[in-house]
Amino acid sequence: MNSSAIRSANYTPLTPLSFLRRSGSVFPDRAAIIYGERRWTYAEFLDDAERMARGIRLAIAPGDRVAFIAPNIPELLIAHFAVALAGGVLVAINSRLSTPELRQILNHSGASLVFVDAELVPRLGDLNAASAVKTVVEVADAEFGVAASGLALGQIPLAEFVSRADTPDQRAIALGWEIDDELAPYSINYTSGTTGAPKGVMYSHRGAYLNAMGEIFHNGFDGASVYLWTLPLFHCNGWCTPWAVTGAGATHVCLRAVRGDRIWGAIEEYGVTNLCGSPTVCSVIANAPEARVLESGLRITTAGAPPSPTMIAELESLGVDVVHVYGLTEVYGPFTINEHQDRWDELGPEERAQLKARQGVAMIQAEAPRVVDEQMVDVPADGETLGEVILRGNNVMLGYFDDEAATAEAFRGGWYHSGDLGVMHPDGYIELKDRAKDIIISGGENISTIEVENAMLSHPAVLDAAVVSYPSERWGERPKAYVVVREGHAVTEAALLEHARDHIARFKVPDYVVFREDLPRTATGKVTKAVLRALDDIPVQPQP
Amino acid sequence: MNSSAIRSANYTPLTPLSFLRRSGSVFPDRAAIIYGERRWTYAEFLDDAERMARGIRLAIAPGDRVAFIAPNIPELLIAHFAVALAGGVLVAINSRLSTPELRQILNHSGASLVFVDAELVPRLGDLNAASAVKTVVEVADAEFGVAASGLALGQIPLAEFVSRADTPDQRAIALGWEIDDELAPYSINYTSGTTGAPKGVMYSHRGAYLNAMGEIFHNGFDGASVYLWTLPLFHCNGWCTPWAVTGAGATHVCLRAVRGDRIWGAIEEYGVTNLCGSPTVCSVIANAPEARVLESGLRITTAGAPPSPTMIAELESLGVDVVHVYGLTEVYGPFTINEHQDRWDELGPEERAQLKARQGVAMIQAEAPRVVDEQMVDVPADGETLGEVILRGNNVMLGYFDDEAATAEAFRGGWYHSGDLGVMHPDGYIELKDRAKDIIISGGENISTIEVENAMLSHPAVLDAAVVSYPSERWGERPKAYVVVREGHAVTEAALLEHARDHIARFKVPDYVVFREDLPRTATGKVTKAVLRALDDIPVQPQP
Repeated sequence: MNSSAIRSANYTPLTPLSFLRRSGSVFPDRAAIIYGERRWTYAEFLDDAERMARGIRLAIAPGDRVAFIAPNIPELLIAHFAVALAGGVLVAINSRLSTPELRQILNHSGASLVFVDAELVPRLGDLNAASAVKTVVEVADAEFGVAASGLALGQIPLAEFVSRADTPDQRAIALGWEIDDELAPYSINYTSGTTGAPKGVMYSHRGAYLNAMGEIFHNGFDGASVYLWTLPLFHCNGWCTPWAVTGAGATHVCLRAVRGDRIWGAIEEYGVTNLCGSPTVCSVIANAPEARVLESGLRITTAGAPPSPTMIAELESLGVDVVHVYGLTEVYGPFTINEHQDRWDELGPEERAQLKARQGVAMIQAEAPRVVDEQMVDVPADGETLGEVILRGNNVMLGYFDDEAATAEAFRGGWYHSGDLGVMHPDGYIELKDRAKDIIISGGENISTIEVENAMLSHPAVLDAAVVSYPSERWGERPKAYVVVREGHAVTEAALLEHARDHIARFKVPDYVVFREDLPRTATGKVTKAVLRALDDIPVQPQP
Repeated sequence: MNSSAIRSANYTPLTPLSFLRRSGSVFPDRAAIIYGERRWTYAEFLDDAERMARGIRLAIAPGDRVAFIAPNIPELLIAHFAVALAGGVLVAINSRLSTPELRQILNHSGASLVFVDAELVPRLGDLNAASAVKTVVEVADAEFGVAASGLALGQIPLAEFVSRADTPDQRAIALGWEIDDELAPYSINYTSGTTGAPKGVMYSHRGAYLNAMGEIFHNGFDGASVYLWTLPLFHCNGWCTPWAVTGAGATHVCLRAVRGDRIWGAIEEYGVTNLCGSPTVCSVIANAPEARVLESGLRITTAGAPPSPTMIAELESLGVDVVHVYGLTEVYGPFTINEHQDRWDELGPEERAQLKARQGVAMIQAEAPRVVDEQMVDVPADGETLGEVILRGNNVMLGYFDDEAATAEAFRGGWYHSGDLGVMHPDGYIELKDRAKDIIISGGENISTIEVENAMLSHPAVLDAAVVSYPSERWGERPKAYVVVREGHAVTEAALLEHARDHIARFKVPDYVVFREDLPRTATGKVTKAVLRALDDIPVQPQP
C-alpha cells in the first residue's frame, strides 16, 4: 500500500491560508475589505495577497522574517496572508513604539524586509549597520492624506515593489498555499516582557488556524458579519481575527485611528456587527457624542482589563453585547472567555457585573486553565486562594524566537506560566487578582514597569526609580514614577519625562514623577510596589 | 531546553472528546439531552459518558471495536464519547440491517462488545461461533414502551453493565480524555460499498474534531441551538454532529423514529433550530398535518439527493432555511455545501432552485473538490464536461478497516475517489450527474445494487439479475429488479421478494420484479443499466 498516497488524501496541514484561499474562490464578489473610499471584494483580496506575496518572495529567502509597521490599514491585513504565502514569517510591530524600540525588534527578529506606513517612515530612523534590513517598502495611504514621504536609500513604494514581481515568470511559480508542516512558524509577535528586552512570541500555522476557528465560534462570525478593526492588528495578530473574519467570508472594515466619530460612522454606514478592544476603546465608543441606541446587534469583545459594571451597563443600554475575554501575546490573544450563564440573568446588575468581570473559562479550542501554587499544585477552587494562572494547548506559542532560556522558563513543568495571579472559583471560572509580572496595561497596551524604570535610570541624575500603576478612568491604568536623585545632581520632572520620551514609546512615559529621598523596601531589599501604588499623590493635572 | 515540556505546553492532540469535557464543565446546568420525559444536563451527560466508559473499559482491551445497534436514543449519543473515552473504537451500525448483514459487520469489525437496543435484540440472532462478540449489553427504552427483552446467554442490561464498573477503584483510574495520537481511529462506519461486502470507514480523532468545527460554523450552532436528531446517528456518526452540538453547548433532542407528529411536536415544545436529513425527511416534515409556518428560524441541512425546487419552495414557505450539502461515509458525512450567493436572490425561483440543487463548494474545514478525467486531469469548469469527483483533506477517512486493497484503490493518486460523476461549474460549484458506483440512495440510505443482485441471484431459479433505481416521490429513488429465470425453473415475484427479505434489509428489497428473457448488454457484455432505468414499467401499486 502506498502510504504517501493515503497521507496526501487524508491529511492536510492546518493553516490560516486556507481561509483566504476558500473565501477568495467561493465568495469572489462579496465585500472583503472596506477602508474609507477603497473597497476589496474577496477575489481582489486574494489577488492582492498573491501579488504582495510574489513581491515578498522575490525579496526574501524562505523562513525570513518580514516586518510590518503600520496602523490598521488594509495592506497590513493583506500581509497577514501574503507573508506566509511567500514563505516568510510576519512580524507586525506596534506602530506606537519609539525609534530605539523599533530598531531593537528589527535587530532581534533579523527582518530583512520591512513594510512601513509612510507616516511612520521617519520613525525608522537610520537603519544602517545594526540591522539586517535590506529593503524598506513604503506604504502610502492617500485615503487619509498621508502621501508617500520622500524616499530614502533602499526604500521602494509598495506599488513598485509589487509590480516588479508581477511578471509572467513569477506568476508561473506556485505560491505557498500548501504547507509541509503545520507547526512551522507563521508569525512573530513582540512583547515588551518583564525585563524590558523584547521577546518574539512565535505562532504556528496550526495554532493560528485553531485559534481562528475558536474566534469564529465565540464571535458568532458568519458571511453576514461586519468586523470593525478597532483592535490593533499588531496585537497578537489582532487576536487571530484577520483569519477568523476571512474564514467566515465576512467583511473587514479597516480603521486608521480609534476615534469615536469614525467608529460610529462605520457602525452607521456598514452595519458593524463585531469589534474588539480594550476597555479604553469601549469607553471611546460609549462616550462619543455620536453614541446612540442600536437596533441591530453589535458585539464588543473586550480584554486587557475587566469591563467595569458601569461600562457594561452603559454599553448594554446602547444595545451592545459585551463579551469579556482574557489572554496574552503568548497564547495567540484570548484564551479564556467569560461565558454567560442563564442563571446570572436572575441576579441584580451589581452581582451580575461582578461575575462578568471574571476572566472565565477556556475557549472552545483551548484547554482548561489552572491556578497553581509554586509547586504547580492546583489551589482550592474557593475563589480566594491566590495562585498563578497556567495555560496549555494548541494556542500556546511555539516559544520565544531565538531565546531558549526564556522559552524554557515560560514552559517549566509543561505549562505556560502566565505570570498572572488569580483565583479559581467553584464554578471553574478564573479571576485575576494581580500580576506577578511588573506589567501595566494602559489602554490595552502592555507597559513593562522595568523597561520604564530603566529609561528613568538611564538619566545621569537618577539614582533609583520605581514605576507603578495608578488607576485611570480613560486608560484603565497609567504609570507613575518614584525617583531618588543622585547626590550632588538635580533634575526637573519635565526634563526627566523628556528624557524618557527619547527612549521609550510615548504611551509608556509616566504621567508624573514624585521625587523621594528613598524607596520603600522589604527586608530583603525589594521595592514594595504595593505601598507606592497605594499613595494618592496624583497631581491635579497629570500629563496624559 | 526540555523539548517535551514545550510540546506538553503547546500541543494537544485534537479530539472530539474535548467538546464534552468543556461543555460538561462550563455549562453543568444547561440542557444537554432531551428524550421524551428524560432530561440530561451537561453535567449529567458528562457523568453518564464517564460511567459508560468505565463499564466499557472493564470489558475491552484498548483499540477494541465496540458495536452499537440502536435508533437515535440518548445512549447511542453518549456512546459517541464513552467508547473513545474507554479507549475503544465505536462501530455504530445501521439499525435497519438484517441479521446476516449485522453479523457480517460484527465479524468484520471483530467487535467484542455490542450494545443493542432491546427491540433489536432478536435481530442479532445467534452470535455464537462466527463472531468475536463476548458481551452483549441490552439497552432498554422504557420511555417508548420498549422494555428489556428476556436476556439470553452473555447478555447484560446496561444499568448492570455500568454499575459493576462504578466502584471506587475504577473511578480512581483516569479515563482517556487526553489522547496520544490525534490520527488514531475514533470510530468505524460501515458502508455497504459497491461490491456488497461491508467496508469499515475509519475516522480519526483529528478528522472528527475538525469536521465538527466545520459543522458548528456552517450550521451556526451556539449555546442557544436546539438540534433534533432526525438524522441517524449510525450514518457517518450523524455527520459528526454529536460532537458539533456538544461542542457548542447546545441541546440535543433525541428521536426514536422519524415521524411527522414527533418532529413537529419537538419543534413546538423545544424550539428546534436545526436538523439534518435526506429529502425524504424533508418531505415528512413538509407534508405532516402538523406543518405550520414557523416564526423563529429552523435550518434543515439536507443531503443524499438534491432538494427539488418544489421541496425548497414548500419548506421556505414554512419559514425553513434549507441548506444542501454533499458527502459520503468516507468523508465524515458532508464535505461540500451549497453556499448561498447574494446575487442568486435576484433570480427567478426556478433558476435559483437549480443553482441550489448543485452540490456546491468545500466546507470551511475541507479542501476544494476536483472533477477529473481518468488520467486525474481536471475537466474544464464548463458545467458540462463529466468527470469523477475526487476529494482530499483532513476529513477524508483514515482508510478502510482491515482492507488495504480497497484503501489503496480508493486513494489512488493521493486523492479519495468518490465514484460520483459530476461537472465543475465556472463558479467552482460541483454538480453531480450520475454515480459511477452502482448505488441507489433511497430515503437517505445507500443501497448497493450489486448486493441486491447477489441476493436475487442466490435464489436457485434465477439465472441473471440486474437492479436499477426508479424515481420515487417519497424516497428519492427505489430499487427495481430485472430477472432472467433459469431454464426449467419457475418462481413468482412474491417468492423472489420473500427470498430477498431473508438476505438483505427490508429497505433494500426491490419494489417489484420484471421477468425478462434476457438483459440488455453492451458489446463488451456489460448490462446497460441506463436502458433498464429508462423503462417505464412501474406497476400500478408497487410495494413500498
